[in-house]
Amino acid sequence: MNIGFIGLGNMGQAMARKLIAAGHTVTVYNRTRSRAEELQSEGATVAGSPADACRGEAVITMLADDRVVAALAFGAKGIATSLKPGSVHISMSTISVGLSRRLAETHSASSTGFVAAPVFGRPSAAEAGQLFIVAAGEQTLLERVGPLFEAMGQKTFVVGDEPSKANVVKIVGNFMLATVIESLGEAFALGGKAGVEPGTLLEILTGTIFPAPVFKSYGSMIAQQKFEPAGFKLSLGLKDVKLALEASDLFEVPLPLASLIRDRFIASMSRGRREWDWSGLAKLSTDDAGIGKF
Amino acid sequence: MNIGFIGLGNMGQAMARKLIAAGHTVTVYNRTRSRAEELQSEGATVAGSPADACRGEAVITMLADDRVVAALAFGAKGIATSLKPGSVHISMSTISVGLSRRLAETHSASSTGFVAAPVFGRPSAAEAGQLFIVAAGEQTLLERVGPLFEAMGQKTFVVGDEPSKANVVKIVGNFMLATVIESLGEAFALGGKAGVEPGTLLEILTGTIFPAPVFKSYGSMIAQQKFEPAGFKLSLGLKDVKLALEASDLFEVPLPLASLIRDRFIASMSRGRREWDWSGLAKLSTDDAGIGKF
Amino acid sequence: MNIGFIGLGNMGQAMARKLIAAGHTVTVYNRTRSRAEELQSEGATVAGSPADACRGEAVITMLADDRVVAALAFGAKGIATSLKPGSVHISMSTISVGLSRRLAETHSASSTGFVAAPVFGRPSAAEAGQLFIVAAGEQTLLERVGPLFEAMGQKTFVVGDEPSKANVVKIVGNFMLATVIESLGEAFALGGKAGVEPGTLLEILTGTIFPAPVFKSYGSMIAQQKFEPAGFKLSLGLKDVKLALEASDLFEVPLPLASLIRDRFIASMSRGRREWDWSGLAKLSTDDAGIGKF
Amino acid sequence: MNIGFIGLGNMGQAMARKLIAAGHTVTVYNRTRSRAEELQSEGATVAGSPADACRGEAVITMLADDRVVAALAFGAKGIATSLKPGSVHISMSTISVGLSRRLAETHSASSTGFVAAPVFGRPSAAEAGQLFIVAAGEQTLLERVGPLFEAMGQKTFVVGDEPSKANVVKIVGNFMLATVIESLGEAFALGGKAGVEPGTLLEILTGTIFPAPVFKSYGSMIAQQKFEPAGFKLSLGLKDVKLALEASDLFEVPLPLASLIRDRFIASMSRGRREWDWSGLAKLSTDDAGIGKF
Repeated sequence: MNIGFIGLGNMGQAMARKLIAAGHTVTVYNRTRSRAEELQSEGATVAGSPADACRGEAVITMLADDRVVAALAFGAKGIATSLKPGSVHISMSTISVGLSRRLAETHSASSTGFVAAPVFGRPSAAEAGQLFIVAAGEQTLLERVGPLFEAMGQKTFVVGDEPSKANVVKIVGNFMLATVIESLGEAFALGGKAGVEPGTLLEILTGTIFPAPVFKSYGSMIAQQKFEPAGFKLSLGLKDVKLALEASDLFEVPLPLASLIRDRFIASMSRGRREWDWSGLAKLSTDDAGIGKF
Repeated sequence: MNIGFIGLGNMGQAMARKLIAAGHTVTVYNRTRSRAEELQSEGATVAGSPADACRGEAVITMLADDRVVAALAFGAKGIATSLKPGSVHISMSTISVGLSRRLAETHSASSTGFVAAPVFGRPSAAEAGQLFIVAAGEQTLLERVGPLFEAMGQKTFVVGDEPSKANVVKIVGNFMLATVIESLGEAFALGGKAGVEPGTLLEILTGTIFPAPVFKSYGSMIAQQKFEPAGFKLSLGLKDVKLALEASDLFEVPLPLASLIRDRFIASMSRGRREWDWSGLAKLSTDDAGIGKF
Repeated sequence: MNIGFIGLGNMGQAMARKLIAAGHTVTVYNRTRSRAEELQSEGATVAGSPADACRGEAVITMLADDRVVAALAFGAKGIATSLKPGSVHISMSTISVGLSRRLAETHSASSTGFVAAPVFGRPSAAEAGQLFIVAAGEQTLLERVGPLFEAMGQKTFVVGDEPSKANVVKIVGNFMLATVIESLGEAFALGGKAGVEPGTLLEILTGTIFPAPVFKSYGSMIAQQKFEPAGFKLSLGLKDVKLALEASDLFEVPLPLASLIRDRFIASMSRGRREWDWSGLAKLSTDDAGIGKF
Repeated sequence: MNIGFIGLGNMGQAMARKLIAAGHTVTVYNRTRSRAEELQSEGATVAGSPADACRGEAVITMLADDRVVAALAFGAKGIATSLKPGSVHISMSTISVGLSRRLAETHSASSTGFVAAPVFGRPSAAEAGQLFIVAAGEQTLLERVGPLFEAMGQKTFVVGDEPSKANVVKIVGNFMLATVIESLGEAFALGGKAGVEPGTLLEILTGTIFPAPVFKSYGSMIAQQKFEPAGFKLSLGLKDVKLALEASDLFEVPLPLASLIRDRFIASMSRGRREWDWSGLAKLSTDDAGIGKF
């Protein structure tokens, strides 16, 4: 397919690479142009503006947050206006339910398609084309862009035809990851102050009831109290918990765990930890237990 | 080995069976005698009193809670007094750190051994001899009772030589399971009210970031809002969260998640759900979201 | 003074009346015009548009929320543009810190003055000219509008020269009121289920350690479980707690009590209580205690 | 009346003094005997044992906690056994509902009377005979000991005939005081980081919606961040919150505020603040806001 790709951060660049490798014609755009040029040798065309990346059958956005997506999507030279009728915008970043709905309305009004397709997976999974893709939108659109998903992911889950539901699922997933981190933080603080060797605790928890990679990776960082370099920044963790709370407001569903964790992320920010990995949330539990180290 | 086994609930009876099957000589005691007699045909000797189950090289207790263990362990005809010097008491139930320490002291004073060896696993795992055993105590004792653990479990994790540390690990594990349940409850309430089909949400969560059995089994009960019959009663869930809070008090380690969940268990009790499975904690999230059903 | 007054709800109408009674020349505007016309016989001039209420030396806004204030303040025919240079906008409603800052900037750019002066007090206090006014802004402006505050309030507290600080104080005050309500709710639920007669509990609490009117008035509503008609709607209570959380985000100050209360307001909304008095938050505590009534 | 008084801490000694001054014959006992001897010159008889303080018509206990009360009340030479039939035990310290019930049962079995009469008021109020007394027990008993209450307090509130209900009220009151402290702590942290001068914030809050002494006294300590010397120790504040949580367990009434505050007290303990005044709980809010000082 002939497509555009906007947003070439660690995730986006890896995803665009897989699309090129799969034989698609890809025009890339990134605010910092050098990130786009890095893909030229692999066959990408570099767009001079976001609008220039919207000339094909589809455009994918993989951007930092609501603000950036909104700035690029709406307005005179925005994505919604630049796409040809019949083309489709695939939003793959983690955005709010409200923005996803607004995008769906805007695209509908301009006779362009809109698909929400956020992903689960770290940059290494993106590089391997092993992302999990959670997609929602009109079935015909989902079928049309299926080959793109196949190039980037190991599996695509379809949530339904209302795009924002895919965003709900992504937000729910990240909220649950944050609770895993907080839970591990409290667990290791208690275990640590009680004299249980953290490596032993980690081995037991992940060797018995929690044999999932997230428990192993976050648990390992917490057991070692090693939160840098960040795989996913603490400040982004807070952003995602806020998305959960926004959805909580919108649908009027209390989320006491998310609220609790929000405040702990804020306390972590105020302690100067915004650049840490979000598993560094666990440090607050050792602070509060009065133990600097296990 | 020639041993006693006290406490033949769903877990205890299955564990005793595996010991008999492995060739050990087992004298069993249970308050409701018929539960003990059910094991006679398999080769167990039925004891008339707890003291009668303490004549061998070791006695295992697998009882409901601190109160029951304390009632049987201390006093004139208690386990500590009835065991011969050199014999060992293996406490396999989920008890408090404080009681475990008191047991260790009492046994030390009477020159009998004490090992804490709580387990992870449901009755079905006990029946299959597939429990995970978390053991702590003097190394020579652990080695001596190793064959018993091999008969009951698939793997034994050694935490150290201070018995109560094994209890800390068990308590931490159950606390983390409770947070998984609360997290799933909030997740499905938000997803449900947002219109995401619960089966789809479950499939995505467990097919991507949470591919662990606990997420599948609890998630499935929550997705179906089917909390009876109970695998592990809600009232026992509250008991275990209280053990975590007791440890939190003892070691002065705040556990905000445990506190939050405690109150939600209590609200569930007050709504008449004490006999539900503890995953029924999730019902409170749908109550609070104003949705009777997803 | 020759002033305008925009927003004639229960509070605003009573405040405008006191201004007229004090001899000021008042041009009033309200979206529902009839509310404005009710003041004509007392001497008010009815404005046909918000801009028409901005011809004098000052204009006061007393509006529902951020959205309404922003809609009237900004834009081509907004307050900022309609005021003559040298005139002053006095924002007396409960608005966010962010909006207050934006208003200050906008007015500064148009050489008009801006004062934030939110109030503490119910409609009955407004009718009696007994409001407490919390004001912030340039000292010369505060002096100039002093006579207006004297007409409406019993006392004016000056917070400083940065208008948004007055909003911080108002938001903090309302947050604390919400915690009083939640605290009373839990107190009466515990007392009630323990068999303490609610009237007795109320008498003791307010007769000993809490002899303040807010404890008496909210405590009385809670003791009687009578939450209608609303003095201040539960949905507005949630709005104000969200303002506190917005400030918490902005300044990176965790507010765990506000977070806890937010979720309980949302649960109350989902139970169909948005029109109740905000003291009706307490009903959730009796729900969670499994007691319909004390 | 001819009475005994056991427990001569800051509160107890002042209360005993008022009883002597009112003309009652008072035999005093204290573990550290010198505290008792200080009252000899005023006319008290010093008892050599708790039992010796139980020879009169009534004995008052004013002790540190459940453990101490239980140690003195039960057993062969305990209060219940030492009192003559028809005499009455007046428990004035802050104890648990469970212990109060157990005392009531024990006294009933020994045909001695039991009244629970905890107090609100600091040592200075005790010295002035200005305590508030919250009493519960059989009406005839309450009437009989009325003159004692008159000597110690400014007012007696009667809760009912079941003694433990007076303890519920006291526990509820202290729980509410703890929420006031936490609420003030969060309020001053937000105000402080937002640049509102703490003295101004205090003046406004207590000059408008919170004109009660507790807001003034705790607010002043928090505004100045001066938490020593302690009027009421932080470790005792935690003890009292735990009594609320025990009652919450007993009656199955969730107390989310108490749970939240418990963890914050524990974090304060782990930071080495157990000897601070309990208003020092507020320091955690400034820690978490990343501001050492306002």
